[in-house]
Amino acid sequence: MTTSQKTDLQFLAPKSIAIIGASNKPEKRGYQAITQLQADGFNQHKIYPINPKAPDILGIKAYPSVMDVPDPIDIALVCTPAHSLPSVIADCGRKGIKGAVILAAGMSEMGEEGLILEQNMLAAAKEWNVRLVGPNTNGVFNLHCDLNMVGVSDAEKGEIGILSQSGNVMLAFVAEAKRKGGVGFSTYVGVGNQSDIRLSEYLEYFGDDNDTAVPAVYIEGFKEGDGRRFLDVARDVVQKKPVVVYKSGRTVAGQVSASSHTGSLAGSYQLTRDVLRQAGVTVVSESDKVLSVAETLGKLPLPKGNRVAILCDSGGHGTITTDALIEAGLQLAPLSAATIAKLKACLPPAAALNNPIDVAGATDEDTGAFADCTEILLQDSNVDVLMIVGMVGAYSVRFSATLLDNEMETSRRIIELTDKYAKPVIVQSVYYPLKPKPLLLLRDHGIPVFIWAEAAIRSGKELVDYAQARRRLAEAAPYPSNTPLAAGSAIFDTAYAQGRTALFESEAKQLLRSYGLAIPEEVVVRCEADLDNLPVQIADDSLAMKVVSKDILHKTDAGGVKLNVNGAQQRLSAYREIIANSQQYKADADIEGVLLAPMLKPGVEVILGVTQDPTFGPVMMFGLGGVFVEVLKDVVFRSIPLAEADAREMIEQIRAVEILNGVRGAKPIDREALVSLILKLSDLVWKHPEIAELDLNPVIANDTGCAIADARIILAEK
Amino acid sequence: MTTSQKTDLQFLAPKSIAIIGASNKPEKRGYQAITQLQADGFNQHKIYPINPKAPDILGIKAYPSVMDVPDPIDIALVCTPAHSLPSVIADCGRKGIKGAVILAAGMSEMGEEGLILEQNMLAAAKEWNVRLVGPNTNGVFNLHCDLNMVGVSDAEKGEIGILSQSGNVMLAFVAEAKRKGGVGFSTYVGVGNQSDIRLSEYLEYFGDDNDTAVPAVYIEGFKEGDGRRFLDVARDVVQKKPVVVYKSGRTVAGQVSASSHTGSLAGSYQLTRDVLRQAGVTVVSESDKVLSVAETLGKLPLPKGNRVAILCDSGGHGTITTDALIEAGLQLAPLSAATIAKLKACLPPAAALNNPIDVAGATDEDTGAFADCTEILLQDSNVDVLMIVGMVGAYSVRFSATLLDNEMETSRRIIELTDKYAKPVIVQSVYYPLKPKPLLLLRDHGIPVFIWAEAAIRSGKELVDYAQARRRLAEAAPYPSNTPLAAGSAIFDTAYAQGRTALFESEAKQLLRSYGLAIPEEVVVRCEADLDNLPVQIADDSLAMKVVSKDILHKTDAGGVKLNVNGAQQRLSAYREIIANSQQYKADADIEGVLLAPMLKPGVEVILGVTQDPTFGPVMMFGLGGVFVEVLKDVVFRSIPLAEADAREMIEQIRAVEILNGVRGAKPIDREALVSLILKLSDLVWKHPEIAELDLNPVIANDTGCAIADARIILAEK
Repeated sequence: MTTSQKTDLQFLAPKSIAIIGASNKPEKRGYQAITQLQADGFNQHKIYPINPKAPDILGIKAYPSVMDVPDPIDIALVCTPAHSLPSVIADCGRKGIKGAVILAAGMSEMGEEGLILEQNMLAAAKEWNVRLVGPNTNGVFNLHCDLNMVGVSDAEKGEIGILSQSGNVMLAFVAEAKRKGGVGFSTYVGVGNQSDIRLSEYLEYFGDDNDTAVPAVYIEGFKEGDGRRFLDVARDVVQKKPVVVYKSGRTVAGQVSASSHTGSLAGSYQLTRDVLRQAGVTVVSESDKVLSVAETLGKLPLPKGNRVAILCDSGGHGTITTDALIEAGLQLAPLSAATIAKLKACLPPAAALNNPIDVAGATDEDTGAFADCTEILLQDSNVDVLMIVGMVGAYSVRFSATLLDNEMETSRRIIELTDKYAKPVIVQSVYYPLKPKPLLLLRDHGIPVFIWAEAAIRSGKELVDYAQARRRLAEAAPYPSNTPLAAGSAIFDTAYAQGRTALFESEAKQLLRSYGLAIPEEVVVRCEADLDNLPVQIADDSLAMKVVSKDILHKTDAGGVKLNVNGAQQRLSAYREIIANSQQYKADADIEGVLLAPMLKPGVEVILGVTQDPTFGPVMMFGLGGVFVEVLKDVVFRSIPLAEADAREMIEQIRAVEILNGVRGAKPIDREALVSLILKLSDLVWKHPEIAELDLNPVIANDTGCAIADARIILAEK
Repeated sequence: MTTSQKTDLQFLAPKSIAIIGASNKPEKRGYQAITQLQADGFNQHKIYPINPKAPDILGIKAYPSVMDVPDPIDIALVCTPAHSLPSVIADCGRKGIKGAVILAAGMSEMGEEGLILEQNMLAAAKEWNVRLVGPNTNGVFNLHCDLNMVGVSDAEKGEIGILSQSGNVMLAFVAEAKRKGGVGFSTYVGVGNQSDIRLSEYLEYFGDDNDTAVPAVYIEGFKEGDGRRFLDVARDVVQKKPVVVYKSGRTVAGQVSASSHTGSLAGSYQLTRDVLRQAGVTVVSESDKVLSVAETLGKLPLPKGNRVAILCDSGGHGTITTDALIEAGLQLAPLSAATIAKLKACLPPAAALNNPIDVAGATDEDTGAFADCTEILLQDSNVDVLMIVGMVGAYSVRFSATLLDNEMETSRRIIELTDKYAKPVIVQSVYYPLKPKPLLLLRDHGIPVFIWAEAAIRSGKELVDYAQARRRLAEAAPYPSNTPLAAGSAIFDTAYAQGRTALFESEAKQLLRSYGLAIPEEVVVRCEADLDNLPVQIADDSLAMKVVSKDILHKTDAGGVKLNVNGAQQRLSAYREIIANSQQYKADADIEGVLLAPMLKPGVEVILGVTQDPTFGPVMMFGLGGVFVEVLKDVVFRSIPLAEADAREMIEQIRAVEILNGVRGAKPIDREALVSLILKLSDLVWKHPEIAELDLNPVIANDTGCAIADARIILAEK
C-alpha cells in the first residue's frame, strides 16, 4: 500500500443513528428519513430523532441535542440548513459521533458566501474529529444494515456498492436492477461536494467491505490531488475485487454542465480513462452498461486468457456473437483435436464443430446436449471463457412446456460444471425478457444471462481485461525509489539559481544522459575557434546545428537550425548564419553558442511527453509524431512511475501501432529500446517532481534504437 | 424508380391459406401452424389443410391436394420435405396460388445434392409463376391479417416490419418488445435461402405496406447482384419511411459462421455500411439497438437539423446526456435571447438557463414547469430536437403519490405541444423500468422514453441522420446518362484488340482526360531521338520519368522511375538508365518507351479507387495515401454514380479530414477541385461498366487543385 494511512469509515455500517433536524412534517427530509429507516427495518430503538422542540417524532422519543442522548451513536444524518452546521458538527464531536451525512446544499458550488460556510463547517469537523459525507448529497444507504437514508424503496440487497456524484444516477441503477432482477446493492454513498471525505477514501472503504463484491463508481471529477490517491487505492482494491467506473464530464460541454453540478475539476477523458485502466479499474464508457458489467465481474471467476468458445443453437446469434467477439478484440478459442472429436461424438452430422459450435438441432428434444458440450469445452485448456447463445433455457417457452424439467436439469448441470472447472460461462438467450425458470436458475447461481449477444460480449470483454490487468498489477514491481541522482539535482539548481525554469537543450540532454538515456554525442560551440577542436566522431559526421539560447525556444522559426552540415567549410558558414539569424530574430537574445550533433538515421518519429496533471500527478503521453498526434489524437497516457508492462501496453495501444512494426518496406523498430526509453524517462520524472513538463519530440525510432532528436524540459516555479 | 418492375408480393397479406403437409400429430409443423393460425384468429373458414390421407385436421376439412379446394387460395405454407417440392409447387401454380412459403431445409446450404433439389424447385416455381419464400425459413407472420405461421405467441401487433435471415433474431425482437411494451410488429418474413424472392423485393413490399411504418432488416449477406437492387429500392423507400438495417457477418470469422448458416456472400462491412447509408438506410451496428432505433424513427417527426436542447432536473443525467450528445456529433442548440428570458421568468434563480437547462427544483411541487419549458424551447427556431432527462414522469414514484394527477396533466401537455410544434421530443427517465403511468402515457402517444441517456442520444442521432439523408436524397439529381463517350470506348477497343485488360498509364490518362479530368501534359518518348523534340512546357520543367510497358506493373521496383530530372543531359541519362534497368528487371519485357511528366507541386496524397463489387456493383473508395489507407484503414466508400452531396460527405467522413483543411502551416486543399474530380470519375465509371478496377494513386491535392500522379485501369475480361 503506497497510500497514506487508511481512513476509518466504519460509521457507514452503523448500528445507531441520530436524525438531526428530525421533523413531524411529512414533506421534510427529517420526517421521511425516519419513516424510511423504519420501513427498512432499522432497529427502532437505535434511531434518535434530534429536535429542540418536539418530545417525540413518529412515535420515537426525540432529544433536543445529540448530547442529550444517553446511548452511543454511530452516525448522524444532518437535515438542518448550512448555517447551523458548525455548531451541529461540534455537538456530534462532543458526543463521539464519528461521521455525519450533510444534506445541505448552497455551499462551495454556490459561490463565495457558500464557500465560507463550507470552510467553517470543515474547520469544525477537523477540530472535533467528525468525518463528513457531503454536503450537497442525498445521503447514504447500507442495505446490509437496513440503513436507508435516501428514500428509495426499490433497492434490492446485493453485492454491488454504489459511489456516486449524482443521486439520480444511483436511482437509475436501482430501477434498472429492479427490472433485471437477480442483482442488488450493498452500500450507496452520495459523495456530494466531497468537502471532507473524497472518492479515494470511499473506494478504500468499499475495498474492505465484505458485503461489497464490486464497487460501481460514477465520477464527474476528482478533487485536486485525489485522482492520484484514487489510482493508488484502486491498485490495491482490484487485487481483491473489480472496480467499475463511469466517468462523465468528458466533453467540454459536459464539463461545464458537471461543474455547475458539483464544482469538480474534470480532466481530459482520455487521460482519465487510460490511467484508471492502468490502475486496474474497469472503465465503462456508457452509463447503461455499468450495471451489467458490474454484475458480470462480480459473479464470474477470472478467465486465464481471452479465448472464447461459442456454443449456439442459432446461426444468427452465432454470427452476431462471433462478429462482436472479434470486434471487441477477443479470440475464438482454437479447439483441440480431442475436443472436436468429443463434440463430433455427441452432436449430429450437420453440427458445426469448429468454434462457433452449432448444435444443429441436437438440443431440440433433449437440451442436455448443451451441458454435454459445456463439459467438453470447459475441459479444453484452450478455452478460457464459454458463451452459450441462442435459445438456451427457453425451449419450454418456444417449443413445448413439457421440456421444462429437462431444461431445469440442464441448467443445474451447467451450474455444477462452472463450479467444477472454475471458468466463466456467459449465456445469451432471446427469451430472457420472458424470464423462463431455467434462465433464472442460471442467473441466481452466478451465470449472467443477456438478451443480446453484444451486451454479453461487452461484459465478457471487461472480465477478460480485468483478469489481465489484475495479473499485470500482481506481477508489477513495487514503485522504484524516488531519491533523485545528485547529477540531476545539480542541473536544476543551476537553472533555478539563474532564475530559469526552462532548461537549455544541452542541459536537458545532459540530465537525460545522467539517467541512462542514450543521447548522441554532441558539443556546444561557443566561438568560431571552437569549430577547429571538435571530437573526431563529430568532425567526421554529417551534422545538425542548432542555436543555444534561453531566449529562443522556437529555433527553426529563428533560422537557428541547419541540417546535413558536412565538413569544416559548411560548419563555419552554418555557424555564422545561425548566429546572424538568431541575432536578427531577437536582437537582445542571450546566445550561448551553437549545438553540433550527428544527423540521425531516418526512422519513425515518436513523441514522449510528461506533464504534472492537477488530478493525477505526473503522467506520460506516447504517440507517433506529426499528424498522428495533432490530427488523429492517437496517443496513450500512463501515470508515472510505469511498470514494464505499462510501457509495453502503452506502445501497443496506439491505433497506428502497425507503423512501428514496419510498413512500406521499413524494418520493425527496436521495441525493446523504446520500452527502455519509456521506463528510464518514467524513473527520471518519478525522482524529480520538480519537472513540470518534459517533451522528447521527436524521438526517431528505427531498427537500431531510439534517438532523442530534441528535448525540452520546463521546471515548476520554485 | 430506377429498379426493374415491382414485384407483387401481396400474398404476404393473405385472406386464405393452404397448409400443405398438414398433420394431426402435435409435434409436426403442419399441426402447429394450424393451431397457431386458429389462436391468432385467422378466419377459420379460410384455412385449407392439405393431406392426402386425413379427411380433416384439427376439426377443419382437409383436402388431398390444393387442386381439390373449391375456393381461391392466396398463399401456401409448405411443410413437406425438399424432394416433394417440384410437384407441390406445380400444384400451387395450377391452383393459381401466387406465393408459397417453403420450410424445408437441406437445399443449397447443404452441398451439391441440395443444390440440385433447389434448382428443380426454382424451375417449377418459374414455370408455374409461383413466388417462393425460403426455403430453409421458419416462415412468415402478418399480425394485421391475424396470420402467424411461426408459432410465436408473444408478438404484439404494431408498426415495425421484420425482414430477417435468422428466425431467432426475430424471436429476440419479439421478446424484447414484449418486455419494453408499447412497440409491436406488422409483418415478419424469414427470408431463408432467398432462392427466389430476395431481400430487395421484400423491402419493396414493406415500402408499400401501409401497416409497416419501419422495416427492420437483419442481413447476413445479399445474393449476388441483389445488394445493388436493395440500394436502389432503399433510396425510394426512405422517402416514405425509415429503413433500419443490422448487418452481421462483418468479420472474417463472422462471415464463415454466416455462410455455414445460409450460404450468402458477406462483403466488407465498411463498404456495406457506407453504401447503405448513402442510400438513406439507418445502419445500426449493435443488434440490441435495432428495436429502440426503429421505434424512435417510426414514432417521431423529422428534425430540421442536429441542434438539441436538453431540459433536466438532475445534474448527473444532464452531464451524461451532454457528453453523449457531443460524442455522437450532435450540437447543443444555441438558445435565443428571447428563449433564455422566457426560461428565466418561469424558473427559480438557481436554474441553469443555458443549454443544458436545469430546472433546479422548479418541478418539485408542480411538474408543469416541464411543460412550460417544453413550449418555450420548441418555440425557439434554434431548437431541432428536445430531450427531457432525469426523473420526469416519475415524481409520483420518487416523492409522493399525490403528484400523479399533476404529472399526468404534464404528460398530456407535452404530448399536445409535440403535436403543435411538430418537433421530436425524447424522454429519459430513471424510473421508467417501474412503468409509471405518466411515462406510459408519453410512450403510447409517440414520445419514446429511455432509461439511460446514451440510448436516448443514440436513437436521437439516428433520427437526425435519417432526416439529413432524406433531405440529401430528395435534393439529389437523378442518375446521369450512362451512354459512354466514343473516345473512351475506342481506348478499350484497342486494349481488348491487343488482348490486354490492363491499360497503359498513358491510355488511362488519355481516357481520364477525355472525361474532363485534368492530367498534366506529358509525352511518351520511344527512342533517344524523341528527347530532342519535346514540347516546350515539358523541356523547361523538372520531370518525372517512368517506363511504359505492359509487362512491368511495379515500375519503381524495376528501377523504371526517375524523379526531379532537369535539363537535356539528365533526361538522356535517365532515359538510358530506365531502359537498362527495365530490361534487366524483365528480359523479355515489351518496352513501349518512357513517359515524361512535370514533377507535381507538393500537397496531400489522396487515393481514389474504383472496383466492381459483386454485391453492390461499381463502388468508389476515397482516402488519404500511404499509412492512412494501409494502416489506419481510414477510407470511405460510395456506390457509383455519386451525387454531389455524396462526394462532399465522402471527403468529410474520413477521420483525418483535418489534414485536408491544412495542418502544420499548409493551406487548405482546393476542396471543390477534389469534389469535381470524384464526380467526373464517378461519371466515367458509370458510363463504362467494363472498367473492373481503377486506381488514382496518388492524387496530389493542394491549394491549387488535384493532380493525378498515377492512374491504373484494369478492364473486365471480355
